Amino acid sequence: MQFDPKTLKFNDAGLIPAIAQDAENGDVLMMAWMNEEAVQRTLDTGRVTYWSRSRQSFWIKGESSGHVQELVDFRVDCDRDCLLVIVNQTGPACHTNRRSCFYSAVRDGEEVELMKPMV
Amino acid sequence: MQFDPKTLKFNDAGLIPAIAQDAENGDVLMMAWMNEEAVQRTLDTGRVTYWSRSRQSFWIKGESSGHVQELVDFRVDCDRDCLLVIVNQTGPACHTNRRSCFYSAVRDGEEVELMKPMV
Repeated sequence: MQFDPKTLKFNDAGLIPAIAQDAENGDVLMMAWMNEEAVQRTLDTGRVTYWSRSRQSFWIKGESSGHVQELVDFRVDCDRDCLLVIVNQTGPACHTNRRSCFYSAVRDGEEVELMKPMV
Repeated sequence: MQFDPKTLKFNDAGLIPAIAQDAENGDVLMMAWMNEEAVQRTLDTGRVTYWSRSRQSFWIKGESSGHVQELVDFRVDCDRDCLLVIVNQTGPACHTNRRSCFYSAVRDGEEVELMKPMV
């Protein structure tokens, strides 16, 4: 069956959450948002492209930082309202320069830092 | 630093997305939503608890199906607007009886099914 981005369920703002997972080790790297065209651009170019809600513009991941995400596999969930992109991540995925955005854990009620910024 | 769910960034509906990842093999299982109390209940009970937007009620994952998620680790992202719960998943995570909700992939423009329902 041919995939049509129009069959995805976008929220009221026309966006769908996209989870990025490291193809190498399965780490969850980040979550950001795509609109219909960002989905299409990601599939067409193999370069993961989000929609920046703060800048209200396309955000080709790594375009300015070099920390690009090369698409390895593109997954759609059962409800068609969430995406999972498996990626080859160059450098850190997080704007704090950490490999993953999920570097804080809650353990025994305390927040602990699991990762330091990459150098 | 003590963790306070009030420091998370909830959307206009008072919800935050939570990604569930399999503690055993790193597979991304599903994405659902939590409100502040669901976060607290998840941490207090060790049983992952979402907020069901369709039913407008707490959703203790697996409460009716037995397909529970035992919390292994609770992560917060850099912007504090997305959660990652690492879980021991009993049985399928997906309501279609598949292990993961992300069982469809888009490859060469075609949608393909990667997983069959568990028996």
